[in-house]
Amino acid sequence: MFDAELLDALDAARRRWEDTTLRQAVERRAERAATFTTISGRPVRRVYTPLDVAGSDYLRDVGLPGEYPYTRGVHATGYRGKLWTMRMFAGFGTAEETNARYRYLLEQGNTGLSVAFDLPTLMGYDTDVPEALGEFGKCGVAVSSLRDMEILFDGIPLGEVSTSMTINGPAAILWAFYIAAAEKQGVSMDRLRGTLQNDILKEYQAQKEYLFPPEPSMRLVTDTIAFGSEHLPEWNTISISGYHIREAGSTAAQELAFTLANGMEYVRWALRRGLDIDAFAPRLSFFFNVHNDFFEEIAKLRAARRIWARAMRETFGAHNPRSWLMRFHTQTAGVSLTAQQPENNIVRVALQALAAVLGGAQSLHTNSMDEALALPSEQAVTIALRTQQIIAHESGVANSVDPLGGSYLVEAMTDAIEDEAYAIFRRIDELGGVLACIENGYFQQAIADAAARFQREVEAGERTIVGVNAYPSAEPPRIPILAMDPAGYERQVARLTDLRATRDGEAVRRALAALETAARGTDNLMPFILDAARAYATLGEITGVLREVFGVYTEQTVI
Amino acid sequence: MFDAELLDALDAARRRWEDTTLRQAVERRAERAATFTTISGRPVRRVYTPLDVAGSDYLRDVGLPGEYPYTRGVHATGYRGKLWTMRMFAGFGTAEETNARYRYLLEQGNTGLSVAFDLPTLMGYDTDVPEALGEFGKCGVAVSSLRDMEILFDGIPLGEVSTSMTINGPAAILWAFYIAAAEKQGVSMDRLRGTLQNDILKEYQAQKEYLFPPEPSMRLVTDTIAFGSEHLPEWNTISISGYHIREAGSTAAQELAFTLANGMEYVRWALRRGLDIDAFAPRLSFFFNVHNDFFEEIAKLRAARRIWARAMRETFGAHNPRSWLMRFHTQTAGVSLTAQQPENNIVRVALQALAAVLGGAQSLHTNSMDEALALPSEQAVTIALRTQQIIAHESGVANSVDPLGGSYLVEAMTDAIEDEAYAIFRRIDELGGVLACIENGYFQQAIADAAARFQREVEAGERTIVGVNAYPSAEPPRIPILAMDPAGYERQVARLTDLRATRDGEAVRRALAALETAARGTDNLMPFILDAARAYATLGEITGVLREVFGVYTEQTVI
Repeated sequence: MFDAELLDALDAARRRWEDTTLRQAVERRAERAATFTTISGRPVRRVYTPLDVAGSDYLRDVGLPGEYPYTRGVHATGYRGKLWTMRMFAGFGTAEETNARYRYLLEQGNTGLSVAFDLPTLMGYDTDVPEALGEFGKCGVAVSSLRDMEILFDGIPLGEVSTSMTINGPAAILWAFYIAAAEKQGVSMDRLRGTLQNDILKEYQAQKEYLFPPEPSMRLVTDTIAFGSEHLPEWNTISISGYHIREAGSTAAQELAFTLANGMEYVRWALRRGLDIDAFAPRLSFFFNVHNDFFEEIAKLRAARRIWARAMRETFGAHNPRSWLMRFHTQTAGVSLTAQQPENNIVRVALQALAAVLGGAQSLHTNSMDEALALPSEQAVTIALRTQQIIAHESGVANSVDPLGGSYLVEAMTDAIEDEAYAIFRRIDELGGVLACIENGYFQQAIADAAARFQREVEAGERTIVGVNAYPSAEPPRIPILAMDPAGYERQVARLTDLRATRDGEAVRRALAALETAARGTDNLMPFILDAARAYATLGEITGVLREVFGVYTEQTVI
Repeated sequence: MFDAELLDALDAARRRWEDTTLRQAVERRAERAATFTTISGRPVRRVYTPLDVAGSDYLRDVGLPGEYPYTRGVHATGYRGKLWTMRMFAGFGTAEETNARYRYLLEQGNTGLSVAFDLPTLMGYDTDVPEALGEFGKCGVAVSSLRDMEILFDGIPLGEVSTSMTINGPAAILWAFYIAAAEKQGVSMDRLRGTLQNDILKEYQAQKEYLFPPEPSMRLVTDTIAFGSEHLPEWNTISISGYHIREAGSTAAQELAFTLANGMEYVRWALRRGLDIDAFAPRLSFFFNVHNDFFEEIAKLRAARRIWARAMRETFGAHNPRSWLMRFHTQTAGVSLTAQQPENNIVRVALQALAAVLGGAQSLHTNSMDEALALPSEQAVTIALRTQQIIAHESGVANSVDPLGGSYLVEAMTDAIEDEAYAIFRRIDELGGVLACIENGYFQQAIADAAARFQREVEAGERTIVGVNAYPSAEPPRIPILAMDPAGYERQVARLTDLRATRDGEAVRRALAALETAARGTDNLMPFILDAARAYATLGEITGVLREVFGVYTEQTVI
């Protein structure tokens, strides 16, 4: 792409520069370290020039926004057309408390909802069972039935907002509650917009919140993809998530490669089910972490779009351009936040959020500064949302599409991360594919190794974490902490007791029996789960039927 | 620099893209505005490609870091060799209070000192005169004599730290106090490192804190440049400052062009004094604002280095490369901060600080979140300093030199801002040069026009200021506010009374008389001011002598 004359002259100039200007500079003052690497351990060069991207072909590899291979973004007008969705992930305590928080967020300019469920809900348990004790409402809201879902969205028009739900093991069930709650509002499912996380593969690899063994879990995911393709044309049936892989300690390239490998695995299952790729691929969506290393994160997001586009078009033969383009949500890196000096987290989140936007995210959650200490307070979550609004409206970065396109560093790093991702894909294939690699512990081991390397570097002082291993403070944090309703648990249990006493028990039994029969066969389970949800069967009851049929999963230990 | 084949193919691809992909995207959803501009009103294109920098020559215009024209920075190793100086501007109340703040900042990792003086000091008045009433210690520390300067740096080894002093009208006098205070510590002036702002031209243009008419003021500046070149080889004799021009409401290009025009004016005066350009030019330094518009600010800083290098080498014929390279301090934009929702300022400052670093600043002050409400509290200033440390140590952006080099947008904007600066230089020349343009109000009018345009845009809602004209909060700010020592004024006045009673009055009279005689002639005044400082003549007394000889200045009214 550069003319040969420039490259020759630059090559000569660079050698001369190394022998003169650089040599003298280093003699005057040694560099601060022998090597400079990203937080993922990727070497970073001293300076990038056209020589570092000489092998790149602009039209083939970079191109124009809104066109294959989408390196510069999926929209021709970038954020000039529509800003990213400011989607604050929120949930705690009871459905009533979380409903109030959603209304507050919408008033403050949040443009999409995102539900955090509590641990019992994520694991498929109702609030009133012993397995749920002590974990009610802590990391999200408890939703044990359609009744809770109705309260959660009370007064929020489900035909107008878009809602993301972070739920995986019991994703199909919570989705059914949502669809049924919308029906109660008079909104038919074909009008619903939102995203189901529903990415079970990364649960085995990183987050460990699975219910069933991989095979029946993949069947459930495929059922939702098929159901959504047919009935919810504006719903993202899955959000293939690198976020939790990264939070577990992976490198940026591992996050990217494992996530895309998982994405291709879901595609293969759907194709085996006989679905047409162009019927379901446009509703696949992704979810990435945006961590501290500013340029590596931007490069990762740019590489992600290019790899996915090529895979969908060239490997899977999709014809519809909407199947090629990768849309993704992003979230700032919770693991990068510190309990010490919590205001520092406002700075970290601002830089990470800017990286997400420069990487072309469709949607963004910004973490609150107090998340290492407690659930986000209203004040902290407002600052986090304001962070996005300042980037959107004051920084000017939304004025032009892919403003870092052409940066020698960013383009070279995009290429390098892409290369590394392809190498990881080859390794996964050699080891038998994604499901085999879950069984043989490849993913878990790779993540554990990367996490251990980073931890060693921090302990050795090679990585500075401001306020933690450098610049400590003698003062304790002085920020307000969220207080949850102490009567929430009692209220939630009472609601469940009342529900079981007043619903049509016979209808519930019928729906659960039909579900069990279907689960033992090969029918798509979504219609059966939806019937059970409409009958006010609880999460625990529906999960119980499926556990009975599918069994549970125990991970192989990684050494 | 790009091969002709690429440019032809890209030109065709771009036309096709406009007729298809872009047209369809805009039909689906109109862009959010008819035009997108930077905060300075500069149009920003939808997407930048190699076509937008096709006229650029990499080796001529961009080059390698540490080499002419220094577009990519003045150091071959960038921040891999040495991080920027984290230089927090601080001062309030008495010298004792500010001394305590400096010690605190150094403990927290601040790497250079920067003195804010109070308004009476900036205007050349001692604390105990009527002109100083009500303004003591408010926007900085009061320093009325060498005695205060000794206290200000008590326990801080002046042979080791570097100190910047924001002082203009009476710059020579405060510098003399500093040199004399160092002598009391046993540190000779040739070992002192630091910077004197000493930029009187921008006072007439923007900040309005001048004492004398332009001609004698320029003589004083030239005296300090000459004195520093001879006696303080590591001292930056002037910090040619765009900061205040920008704070007064100028555009980014005006800030750049006016500042560089002023710099060239100082060079002309020094040359007329008979100084060798390579003797003084290496100690000229600059000071820029980093405002909200992220990429425009980065482009401005890159353009600044290139224009200055070309001017020094080609226009002024400097031979020493150290005369070509522009070193600059940066400060986040105080005017961009809001009293409403002060935590939002942490976000603004983080983004602006990142722009300063990506623009290759040598030194940076980050504003505190409470500055729109009060003097910075210890907590607020710590967060501001941590912001720099997080960028330096966690974001990875210091790993590679000029990481945005090559970005089509950044390179094109660098070129455009450079073009605009040259157009402004031509206009200043047509109007008779810098001093004529101060007299005829050109600068003041241009700044007033730009400020009025911005204000109109904010009032019309075309510019969003988060928390001000959008996303308001019903809650008042809840942050701690600095309390100053209520006895400070009395203590400072008592110290002055005691000084006048106990010093050698005859020595003071002799020194002031010698200064007056010199001022009426053409000798360099610095040795005379220094003698007066050593004799504990006060700021007001020395200024008084000079006012008597030079007269005062009244600005022409700008209509």
